[in-house]
Amino acid sequence: MAGNSFGKIFSVTTFGESHGVAIGGVVDGCPPGLALSEEDLQGDLDRRKPGTSRYTTARREDDEVQILSGVFEGKTTGTSIGLLIKNKDQRSQDYSTIADRFRPGHADYTYEQKYGVRDYRGGGRSSARETAIRVAAGGIAKKFLKTEFGIEIHGYLSQLGPIKAETIDHSVTNTNPFFCPDADKLPLLDEYMRDLKKSGDSIGAKVSVVATNMPVGWGEPVFDRLDADIASAMMGINAVKGVEVGDGFAVVEQKGSEHRDALTPDGFASNHAGGVLGGISSGQDLLVHMALKPTSSISVPGKTIDKQGQEIDIVTKGRHDPCVGIRAVPIAEAMLAIVLMDHCLRHRAQNANAHSSTPVIAGSTD
Amino acid sequence: MAGNSFGKIFSVTTFGESHGVAIGGVVDGCPPGLALSEEDLQGDLDRRKPGTSRYTTARREDDEVQILSGVFEGKTTGTSIGLLIKNKDQRSQDYSTIADRFRPGHADYTYEQKYGVRDYRGGGRSSARETAIRVAAGGIAKKFLKTEFGIEIHGYLSQLGPIKAETIDHSVTNTNPFFCPDADKLPLLDEYMRDLKKSGDSIGAKVSVVATNMPVGWGEPVFDRLDADIASAMMGINAVKGVEVGDGFAVVEQKGSEHRDALTPDGFASNHAGGVLGGISSGQDLLVHMALKPTSSISVPGKTIDKQGQEIDIVTKGRHDPCVGIRAVPIAEAMLAIVLMDHCLRHRAQNANAHSSTPVIAGSTD
Amino acid sequence: MAGNSFGKIFSVTTFGESHGVAIGGVVDGCPPGLALSEEDLQGDLDRRKPGTSRYTTARREDDEVQILSGVFEGKTTGTSIGLLIKNKDQRSQDYSTIADRFRPGHADYTYEQKYGVRDYRGGGRSSARETAIRVAAGGIAKKFLKTEFGIEIHGYLSQLGPIKAETIDHSVTNTNPFFCPDADKLPLLDEYMRDLKKSGDSIGAKVSVVATNMPVGWGEPVFDRLDADIASAMMGINAVKGVEVGDGFAVVEQKGSEHRDALTPDGFASNHAGGVLGGISSGQDLLVHMALKPTSSISVPGKTIDKQGQEIDIVTKGRHDPCVGIRAVPIAEAMLAIVLMDHCLRHRAQNANAHSSTPVIAGSTD
Amino acid sequence: MAGNSFGKIFSVTTFGESHGVAIGGVVDGCPPGLALSEEDLQGDLDRRKPGTSRYTTARREDDEVQILSGVFEGKTTGTSIGLLIKNKDQRSQDYSTIADRFRPGHADYTYEQKYGVRDYRGGGRSSARETAIRVAAGGIAKKFLKTEFGIEIHGYLSQLGPIKAETIDHSVTNTNPFFCPDADKLPLLDEYMRDLKKSGDSIGAKVSVVATNMPVGWGEPVFDRLDADIASAMMGINAVKGVEVGDGFAVVEQKGSEHRDALTPDGFASNHAGGVLGGISSGQDLLVHMALKPTSSISVPGKTIDKQGQEIDIVTKGRHDPCVGIRAVPIAEAMLAIVLMDHCLRHRAQNANAHSSTPVIAGSTD
Repeated sequence: MAGNSFGKIFSVTTFGESHGVAIGGVVDGCPPGLALSEEDLQGDLDRRKPGTSRYTTARREDDEVQILSGVFEGKTTGTSIGLLIKNKDQRSQDYSTIADRFRPGHADYTYEQKYGVRDYRGGGRSSARETAIRVAAGGIAKKFLKTEFGIEIHGYLSQLGPIKAETIDHSVTNTNPFFCPDADKLPLLDEYMRDLKKSGDSIGAKVSVVATNMPVGWGEPVFDRLDADIASAMMGINAVKGVEVGDGFAVVEQKGSEHRDALTPDGFASNHAGGVLGGISSGQDLLVHMALKPTSSISVPGKTIDKQGQEIDIVTKGRHDPCVGIRAVPIAEAMLAIVLMDHCLRHRAQNANAHSSTPVIAGSTD
Repeated sequence: MAGNSFGKIFSVTTFGESHGVAIGGVVDGCPPGLALSEEDLQGDLDRRKPGTSRYTTARREDDEVQILSGVFEGKTTGTSIGLLIKNKDQRSQDYSTIADRFRPGHADYTYEQKYGVRDYRGGGRSSARETAIRVAAGGIAKKFLKTEFGIEIHGYLSQLGPIKAETIDHSVTNTNPFFCPDADKLPLLDEYMRDLKKSGDSIGAKVSVVATNMPVGWGEPVFDRLDADIASAMMGINAVKGVEVGDGFAVVEQKGSEHRDALTPDGFASNHAGGVLGGISSGQDLLVHMALKPTSSISVPGKTIDKQGQEIDIVTKGRHDPCVGIRAVPIAEAMLAIVLMDHCLRHRAQNANAHSSTPVIAGSTD
Repeated sequence: MAGNSFGKIFSVTTFGESHGVAIGGVVDGCPPGLALSEEDLQGDLDRRKPGTSRYTTARREDDEVQILSGVFEGKTTGTSIGLLIKNKDQRSQDYSTIADRFRPGHADYTYEQKYGVRDYRGGGRSSARETAIRVAAGGIAKKFLKTEFGIEIHGYLSQLGPIKAETIDHSVTNTNPFFCPDADKLPLLDEYMRDLKKSGDSIGAKVSVVATNMPVGWGEPVFDRLDADIASAMMGINAVKGVEVGDGFAVVEQKGSEHRDALTPDGFASNHAGGVLGGISSGQDLLVHMALKPTSSISVPGKTIDKQGQEIDIVTKGRHDPCVGIRAVPIAEAMLAIVLMDHCLRHRAQNANAHSSTPVIAGSTD
Repeated sequence: MAGNSFGKIFSVTTFGESHGVAIGGVVDGCPPGLALSEEDLQGDLDRRKPGTSRYTTARREDDEVQILSGVFEGKTTGTSIGLLIKNKDQRSQDYSTIADRFRPGHADYTYEQKYGVRDYRGGGRSSARETAIRVAAGGIAKKFLKTEFGIEIHGYLSQLGPIKAETIDHSVTNTNPFFCPDADKLPLLDEYMRDLKKSGDSIGAKVSVVATNMPVGWGEPVFDRLDADIASAMMGINAVKGVEVGDGFAVVEQKGSEHRDALTPDGFASNHAGGVLGGISSGQDLLVHMALKPTSSISVPGKTIDKQGQEIDIVTKGRHDPCVGIRAVPIAEAMLAIVLMDHCLRHRAQNANAHSSTPVIAGSTD
């Protein structure tokens, strides 16, 4: 497969440009018998969609997803599931001025060089608009994981510029436009973002996702480790520049006696590993962090070149998020769900009869 | 494919346990006509192999690789390349005491739960011994990338515990047992490691890899982005807990005006992106960092459970690296080479006729 | 990937049921710069679509395909191509009586047992309606192969029941509703089909496809041979029970001295091989035959069981082709085109620099 | 993956040339806990190996397979299984005369054109020697299918030139060097082969494989149908030019009322389908036939060209089977076993919880 598919047994293949007729995709490998309707997917799409607050792009899209196949009488049938979201508010005229120039920090230059041609309208295929289909596909995976295993997936903004969430309260996350789990930081975020908008600049962010009630045993070493596939899934989200599992880069300065999580009859005594040992889920909470770069489309003037290689000034107009990291929260949740569901099915394939005589201990006691 | 293959067009499939008869693999998709012999691969294997200094495990292996097929009269033929390394110094008796217990921080527990059975000798399949074949396969990719494009791949230890390399001098890296590129830090490292060994503990590390002379255009969005595949490759190396491209987690606190790399007629003015834009190589140097956890096998006593779920004390004997990060340097280079070669071929497949009318600018001027 | 994708570099992933909202798919891996519009695809869709003659099902579908992405200003961009065909004339009520019974010769029983549930309306996913998307995807491949290499792909009905085409005249094939290349056999076919319809029975057929102007070198041994992938593609078409390349089953009684095609300075002296040697295209015409079983939905009464395992009588009503083989002609062409395009790109990936010093001889002199 | 892998969950990747150091492969995806040793595989290797009778090539190979990994204390561990067979009797000198010429009917010309280089010794990678690893891998699959489901796989020679087996008695098959299941035809075969050897010519053959005790539900429509994957597996065996499932090409002249297999409370009333409906196993016996072309290496003189494109005479010396079809019997069995095991695991992955309320009827009553 060329690069528009993700997953080996449970997979999603997407298509669609920012300003085309529609975006869509095919989810393959979903087990039959799962209760599913558009409503199961719409909630996360609404969380991701633009135009929901003054801190995200003013582009308005309903992002209404249609399930075109694979569901019959309210249940999945085991056949491939077609997903479609029509594009509405496209305003291509905003972008015509950038047809012959390369916005710095964007994929304009690399798409042009790779393919010799590009749909420049709103970033074309490289636009984050495409991730709406990932969110829809992830909604299917979330439903499956919740129904079959009680797995919950919680994403949140753990840092925005200098402001760090210190309390992680999942009940707070979805009550504010920042997906911030720390109620105390909301006024700070509000003020920071207001100033940022005024300055015309943008800011990076750190997003985290945790999966609870994880089974032991998912992950296919030595290459298709659970954490390796998660790293690919997260680094494959627009603007992500770093991925961590568990303690992540903090391990560089840790001692072995400090890092390794002791096993006890009552479960792991800590969770530095972030829920993966040897590429296989340990039953501890799965904990993933990612770093998202600041939006490159800002109204602060910059230098770039045009298609003839001539230097020009650039000021990106149009409607853009001052912090793309915020809306990445539901995308990160969706990608984690897709990875987990794929690995659940892959594990089942090979290990349907595998029974350890060892008792499964509980996850982290943290 | 189950999880023992990596790569879509240029791929490596590995087999072998730490204390089995041999480890080996199959490299598929190598173009014909590449001059290749065992000597091309042995150098990196020697860099990775145990027993080379007092800071790595005392296990002694020749790690002599045999090319069993795919090369005829000194050149690759386009057919699959069989690789074999026999195991010699196995000392399985060292490990028999851990057959019924789970070493904390290791994959013992997860393998047991996943498969219901495990080869406990030296970690079996989860041992880093398996990575020798990755290094051999990476050697083929390195040769190809160097021959066809002049691409150079340099790995180095950028941090060990609290000690950071501040000068990156590739001519220094391979002159010391730490793969440290900063000559000034060698005495510090020597002292730190001596103390560490005495304490019986271990330490984490940060390893970096850079590829220079990169072409523009490699990477297959939206999922098989160059950086996504790199993230998978690196997170798939034993002990890695975090991966960064370019500025990595530093972007969280960066402004857009600060992060985005301006394009100029003479090339990019900076390289915050680390050589990838929109998942496609930009021609800038490709820069990747990873965090490796401290070795879990230490002689500091710890708590764990046995197969019956009973609490027991554990002290790992045997021969182990106090910092597994060090030997990861050639492994990280190998995996980067494999990803790049795979993407080179994938790019060729789809874009053989793609010609942008845009001039290719030089890489980073940094 | 679960089973709804075909192809490794150039791939198509399909979705959709016979009586759902729409059928569709994603074509991935198409090189950029190919001139493409819906009109390029509609011609073959019209050849495949039902309701075009009195010998095919009376179901009427416009089968109007929409390209939703991957094409910009009339050319492919190298990104994934979304395809959609809305279902119109569904008449689900015709099928409600078969919800609890298994039509013999159909996939009703196996889908029910495999998935535990099935969309029984018109065969659901197992309906040949799904192949319309294969035809659309194949249209893209045909355009590419024609533009880049001058390859022509001609399918035809080579036998229907006892009536065999003896003259293969491609200019005749598309002038008659049977896709028969032998003008002399048209009155016979007409009479045979009229009698068949009267009897309420159905008949099998043999369909052939030939590709001319083939390059040498496509095919990836040892498993992904060109002929192996063709066999999969053809056997994967509904109702196909046999596939032959070149002389096919006739080789069983051939001597080696008779079968092997001599190479001469002017080309191959014959084409018993059908254009493939060792799984790689030889430059001879590629010749493939397939056998299609008679339609199982007939008005001749039969025996079957219901979901409770009770014996019942069955008479299939509804609108059905008395010979499904006829409409398979454009499907077989499409699948051959998809295989060839995929192998073209795969060959390019690995062998971009491979240059034999041997002169390429012309194809078959037949 | 380039073309040297087969299977998606249970897969085999092979390497090795006819006259290299060794041939080998990696089997990935085998479930843990399967009792396995070299002895389980050696029996079929002995059936396939050359030099067993005067009707096969005089080349003598022990074909002794070594399991290098993936088995611990007599059971599979779920990790990849390395397989190795050393080449012994190579006699490369026999082949040196053909370095610069293309044997008609062989892959010499196409390999040279594809790769620009080829290992001409004994056909290199295109030699049937490579299939020994398929037989070893198939042995693992056979053991699994037999242990888990009681599935038996029987291959046999159903026709050799004009001589057809009329009685299928599996107890006869392995008692004679032709794998012929019809004891009455043995004298005829003996005489025919003696005359053939005298004439220096070769003959084609038809080989059949049947799998009994098949479960219902294996196969992944719409592309990865069980029969499509079988077609690929069989057409991918050296010399195969045609594949049939069930009635195969006979369906061309069948009526629907004649072909469709009635379902009865006691099972299917017949088995024209050959065990597959809609690409999914029906529980009937799985029946596959294939046509193998006559050996191209014969001592009857022929015409060909050399690397300069000049016409030359060719007489193939060396040691060759006058009927390659005979030794294909264990290869066909192995490939069928691999396909079935892969589909068993794929089915499990997606349908672990799928339960039809429909009673499973017995297979064919034939």
